[in-house]
Amino acid sequence: MSIERRFGDVRTFSEQLCETLATEDYGVQTMADVSPAKWHLAHTTWFFETFVVKPLRDDWRSPDPLYDVLFNSYYNAVGAQWTRHQRGLLSRPTVGEVYEYRAQVTEAVIALLGEGRADPGLVEIGINHEQQHQELLLTDIKHVFAFNPLQPVFREGAAAGPENGREPSWWSFDEGLVEIGVAGDGFAFDNESPRHRVFLESFEIADRLVTNGEWLEFMRDGGYSTASLWLSEGWALIQSDGWRAPLYWQERDGVWWMSTLGGPRPVDPHGAVTHVSLFEADAFATWSGARLPTEFEWESAARRAAAPSSGNFVESGRLHPGAAATDQFFGDAWEWTRSAYAPYPGYVAAPGALGEYNGKFMANQFVLRGGSCATSMSHIRATYRNFFPASSRWQFSGVRLCRSK
Amino acid sequence: MSIERRFGDVRTFSEQLCETLATEDYGVQTMADVSPAKWHLAHTTWFFETFVVKPLRDDWRSPDPLYDVLFNSYYNAVGAQWTRHQRGLLSRPTVGEVYEYRAQVTEAVIALLGEGRADPGLVEIGINHEQQHQELLLTDIKHVFAFNPLQPVFREGAAAGPENGREPSWWSFDEGLVEIGVAGDGFAFDNESPRHRVFLESFEIADRLVTNGEWLEFMRDGGYSTASLWLSEGWALIQSDGWRAPLYWQERDGVWWMSTLGGPRPVDPHGAVTHVSLFEADAFATWSGARLPTEFEWESAARRAAAPSSGNFVESGRLHPGAAATDQFFGDAWEWTRSAYAPYPGYVAAPGALGEYNGKFMANQFVLRGGSCATSMSHIRATYRNFFPASSRWQFSGVRLCRSK
Amino acid sequence: MSIERRFGDVRTFSEQLCETLATEDYGVQTMADVSPAKWHLAHTTWFFETFVVKPLRDDWRSPDPLYDVLFNSYYNAVGAQWTRHQRGLLSRPTVGEVYEYRAQVTEAVIALLGEGRADPGLVEIGINHEQQHQELLLTDIKHVFAFNPLQPVFREGAAAGPENGREPSWWSFDEGLVEIGVAGDGFAFDNESPRHRVFLESFEIADRLVTNGEWLEFMRDGGYSTASLWLSEGWALIQSDGWRAPLYWQERDGVWWMSTLGGPRPVDPHGAVTHVSLFEADAFATWSGARLPTEFEWESAARRAAAPSSGNFVESGRLHPGAAATDQFFGDAWEWTRSAYAPYPGYVAAPGALGEYNGKFMANQFVLRGGSCATSMSHIRATYRNFFPASSRWQFSGVRLCRSK
Amino acid sequence: MSIERRFGDVRTFSEQLCETLATEDYGVQTMADVSPAKWHLAHTTWFFETFVVKPLRDDWRSPDPLYDVLFNSYYNAVGAQWTRHQRGLLSRPTVGEVYEYRAQVTEAVIALLGEGRADPGLVEIGINHEQQHQELLLTDIKHVFAFNPLQPVFREGAAAGPENGREPSWWSFDEGLVEIGVAGDGFAFDNESPRHRVFLESFEIADRLVTNGEWLEFMRDGGYSTASLWLSEGWALIQSDGWRAPLYWQERDGVWWMSTLGGPRPVDPHGAVTHVSLFEADAFATWSGARLPTEFEWESAARRAAAPSSGNFVESGRLHPGAAATDQFFGDAWEWTRSAYAPYPGYVAAPGALGEYNGKFMANQFVLRGGSCATSMSHIRATYRNFFPASSRWQFSGVRLCRSK
Repeated sequence: MSIERRFGDVRTFSEQLCETLATEDYGVQTMADVSPAKWHLAHTTWFFETFVVKPLRDDWRSPDPLYDVLFNSYYNAVGAQWTRHQRGLLSRPTVGEVYEYRAQVTEAVIALLGEGRADPGLVEIGINHEQQHQELLLTDIKHVFAFNPLQPVFREGAAAGPENGREPSWWSFDEGLVEIGVAGDGFAFDNESPRHRVFLESFEIADRLVTNGEWLEFMRDGGYSTASLWLSEGWALIQSDGWRAPLYWQERDGVWWMSTLGGPRPVDPHGAVTHVSLFEADAFATWSGARLPTEFEWESAARRAAAPSSGNFVESGRLHPGAAATDQFFGDAWEWTRSAYAPYPGYVAAPGALGEYNGKFMANQFVLRGGSCATSMSHIRATYRNFFPASSRWQFSGVRLCRSK
Repeated sequence: MSIERRFGDVRTFSEQLCETLATEDYGVQTMADVSPAKWHLAHTTWFFETFVVKPLRDDWRSPDPLYDVLFNSYYNAVGAQWTRHQRGLLSRPTVGEVYEYRAQVTEAVIALLGEGRADPGLVEIGINHEQQHQELLLTDIKHVFAFNPLQPVFREGAAAGPENGREPSWWSFDEGLVEIGVAGDGFAFDNESPRHRVFLESFEIADRLVTNGEWLEFMRDGGYSTASLWLSEGWALIQSDGWRAPLYWQERDGVWWMSTLGGPRPVDPHGAVTHVSLFEADAFATWSGARLPTEFEWESAARRAAAPSSGNFVESGRLHPGAAATDQFFGDAWEWTRSAYAPYPGYVAAPGALGEYNGKFMANQFVLRGGSCATSMSHIRATYRNFFPASSRWQFSGVRLCRSK
Repeated sequence: MSIERRFGDVRTFSEQLCETLATEDYGVQTMADVSPAKWHLAHTTWFFETFVVKPLRDDWRSPDPLYDVLFNSYYNAVGAQWTRHQRGLLSRPTVGEVYEYRAQVTEAVIALLGEGRADPGLVEIGINHEQQHQELLLTDIKHVFAFNPLQPVFREGAAAGPENGREPSWWSFDEGLVEIGVAGDGFAFDNESPRHRVFLESFEIADRLVTNGEWLEFMRDGGYSTASLWLSEGWALIQSDGWRAPLYWQERDGVWWMSTLGGPRPVDPHGAVTHVSLFEADAFATWSGARLPTEFEWESAARRAAAPSSGNFVESGRLHPGAAATDQFFGDAWEWTRSAYAPYPGYVAAPGALGEYNGKFMANQFVLRGGSCATSMSHIRATYRNFFPASSRWQFSGVRLCRSK
Repeated sequence: MSIERRFGDVRTFSEQLCETLATEDYGVQTMADVSPAKWHLAHTTWFFETFVVKPLRDDWRSPDPLYDVLFNSYYNAVGAQWTRHQRGLLSRPTVGEVYEYRAQVTEAVIALLGEGRADPGLVEIGINHEQQHQELLLTDIKHVFAFNPLQPVFREGAAAGPENGREPSWWSFDEGLVEIGVAGDGFAFDNESPRHRVFLESFEIADRLVTNGEWLEFMRDGGYSTASLWLSEGWALIQSDGWRAPLYWQERDGVWWMSTLGGPRPVDPHGAVTHVSLFEADAFATWSGARLPTEFEWESAARRAAAPSSGNFVESGRLHPGAAATDQFFGDAWEWTRSAYAPYPGYVAAPGALGEYNGKFMANQFVLRGGSCATSMSHIRATYRNFFPASSRWQFSGVRLCRSK
């Protein structure tokens, strides 16, 4: 598909994702990590405007020069930024004005592509960037809706994760040198490079994710009240915040329910557990007599599993991939690894503002691999490195067990 | 005017106040003290529903039983309340749904009044309650708009306070016993009772409010950096929060501007200063060689001044009263008094939930008297007691000087 | 007694109060309100040094010029101050060095008094100031010891409040003008002036304080879980801080104990309740069908009761007054009044640093009257105004009921 | 040396370290990370009591059963713990009582060793544990003294780091598999195991630490105000906390001074920079065109450098190693690595309480290698893994540069 076509599709798809939103839903920020849908729509537009349009169009005028501040996320090289946790406090620009802003920038990029002036590499980054925000838009609106006691429904019929009642099998890998990181022509982020060698001791890894049913066993066995299972910081956190189950789970009359984009549903014991933090994932693994894989073990194993073939929510409009993917590594949930997010040997951030994209976050975050039901298909690859703080759980984050042999 | 008519007018007027709002503007809460416009519209409706409709209508059904929690402000006797500082985090019910809720309850009250079943005393309280929230709606939306760097305009032409360039005169009062508090038939809140005697030493009080021009002098004379002028808690506050001018004032290129409901304007030296805290008011008075009046001095003086004749914003659609009011006590700004908000001798709060209206706030607040450009005309009376914490300044709060003889 | 003699006695008595302290006990600050004993000893010394010695002695040298910062409490006119809540983080100067500092300044003041150079008025203020800190030293060390799970004993035999099993009687007062504030020659603080007239409606006041036994009834009747009894801010506070009893009370195996300066003791139902906040005092009064007195009612009633005759802890070394005082107004506990701390009509703070002594605290505090078992006898007078925030309860603060007729 | 002898020496040495402390100095906790000297003396004693004495002595009686709570640091398997940030709020037990406690436990351990009943492995862990706390005691007392404006001196003559004016050389290492972690008989902590293989790309590493002079250049070049040099979290931190230089540095009249255990001294440009955070270390490395080494690069390089021969402070009473060590890897400062603290492949924490020693901290901390002037000689080894959060800087933490070839 041509880049013009892919660019247009991605821009359109962001707006299709918002079809069921009321105007009021676009503006709310229920916690600092969450951004309003309106902000996602505007920020992805600002990205193309800043990196593609402005450098080429001297005559370009933003709807308001302050958009540069309001919709810059964290690029210090570009300039000042509106305070992150106050993104929900701005009623203006209105939703309509943001859609106009989108249309103007979309048109400008298409024109520049048509004239052969736009750098396709930059547009490619912008496309991938917008796809990342499509997933965030979904996880953020999920939080906004779940926070509201009226429990609005984002999309009727949006289903929970895949059924999976069988026992997991363990795939076995021998020790040896493996190649890690990206090689080849497809788009990849800078943090997936350089490709390099890592020595792995032998290990085994489960062929499916941990299920809600297994998580309920962990809870019933006192998992959340047994200090010895927990990393110290995790134990302190679950005390102070009173965590006793995954995010979005609530017990009513002895039955566990969870908020979904389709509204509240009873917890499905066969579905993959999601919305757990690294701390919970690690405690669960310890309780299971296993551990989390490193990102290197994960990548090495995922490469040797079947290539991803499932559709996924973002392009297909469904909330979960087809059954074909369920025994694989992709598309059910982002899988916590035991690896802190760090630069690969020889990694150098790009010069200029785009160098801030990934490199400056390489401390106190953990790598997640695989991709969730809300992840764009084109981000489903063995080398993709997602990353979040160990305490985060509003993403579709789940658990795959691993063990040393 | 009949109570049905006055009820209908007040309900309509709340909605007219919102005519210029975009849907997005209804939902934002820029600080804990501020409530979203949507919440004001719903809460005043909940008040009539709870105290007038529900006790008389067994068949009554709210749009959602959770409205009882979401729109209860602080009435523990009624039940649980949604967390105050999270009122801006709810996109649902939508603005449209809130207007429907309003229409249903308005209709029900009118029907009950028509049938002679509604208690006029309760409806009267509800009317006065909604008028109070009309002023809050304006001060809150002012905060929401002023917070936004795009500086939206609430109403074109909404003007600043009255011009007043002349020197103040001092009215003189001899010592003696005065009667304080309400007597007679008109509506009044319980905190204005019982009428009782207070002995006042002789005093003098200024015949106009402190102006912006005088405040600029205070600032230029180092008022905000001279510890000896300040109450200890006020001094700590202006250090920690960096206050150097009234709320909404900003210096640009050596000129002071202020946010108004009509957008940013240069500070008018002849206008009455507003948006100052009790701490600032007290420091200014000390700097002036004067002091703030007690609420008893104020009431006694105001009674003897001309009766209020000015129109005011809430009913007239104008943002400030006519010139006739400028040498009087009403309608320019809420005037800080040196009196802590306390029960009058013999005060007893009403039984039941409505007893929570006023009495439970009688600690750590100061009384303001007079009424602002945004106050309902029917609240402009000598005995009316407004109250806010000493640090509050998002209300139209100003300063009148007083001195002992 | 000569002022030299009284000065010397007060200086000595502060040190006698510390006789049972270990060196380690002098330095601890268990909350921001508490100051270390070492700090009290040094600050009272700094007070004499700053206001009496330095102005008269050009050759004077402090042990260290930084003492001026470290031991200034809140006098901005004198200069910078060490952060209040960090007073416990300074191991130096040592206790020994502070005692040396005391000795030097004591000697200097005595010399200046002997030479007739020291201003007796300033020394008198310093004496009264040090007596105030003697009480604070006791309440602070009580907090330090009660905080420690090892429960150290400050003084063996230090007893709880007076026995008092009888029903209270009510003294009745008719309406009328009364004189409030100090008149005459004895020492008084500036906040007790000017004497002025206040009109009081008729009222009745209890002839004894509320007892622990009555407080237990309040607790058993759900006093701490009945929202309608509480001022709004108080209700929020007891939720957030989990208050369910007076400070220092703990239930063990169904029996209530309380920490005292003599160690933990079972709560004596006949003793006067102490260590309650204004919020608790007010809720108790509401529950009782009564209210708290204003400071004017209190002063007027106290004047007409028998003059204080009891000894008291600070001079007598006993922790509570003799039985003769139990039906009076003085020496059992500081009694919360319903009056916010405010300037009397015509009050003007003294010029210079000493003007900061009282005036700048006249906001968001409540007046307490009477004096506790730890109060210096010479502070026991009808016009004395103590003041603390409504939430404070580490002082010996109790409750006397009042009611309108 | 026999274990009895080594045990006794270590116990004695902890007390010798405190020789210059006043009683008051033992109790202060200037921030949550700092523990009072008294607590270190008691906690190391509690460690031997809990793990060595109690399991063998049924008749054992602690001075107070609450010591078990007060001096347990973080061992949930042992029981409850006194709140960490409140360790400085306990005046009792006194310093004298803590020394008595030490003597009793020391005697008991020696007796059990003599009888052959004590497990030498546990005593060995206890010895190493106490040596770790000797370093912490020094870094903590440094903080306590530096915090005090009177600037007490811990030890006269305690000198700054080594002089080092020459340019650094770069040692070069080729790619290849290396062995990481401990092998052999000597004592090591569980986090140094298992020994395993790591593949390293080729790299170069500096033969000395970054100096204060180089750090001054970084500061003068705007290092602390250039966002592009910083990890995102570090940049936020230096804004919020106002960091503009290493901890303990202060500029006076254009000259940089730093607090040392010997009191304030001018910053020596030839000394190794210390008291910088991981964030500062990483920013400095970026500014230098280099990077921090991984802990694997460090260990591999250190193994091939000369074995450590320098004396060190803890045993020798000197504050820095001899000149012979300056071109080596040990004893000048703990060197930040770019490696998050994580378990080695196959790592399993020990069962029981001692399993909490290291494993539960393996998240959101970074590894430091080498050892400082305050580190016990017997902890100076190539495999030792120290770890602290990226924001910590009260340890003697410095920087060694590395670069990919």
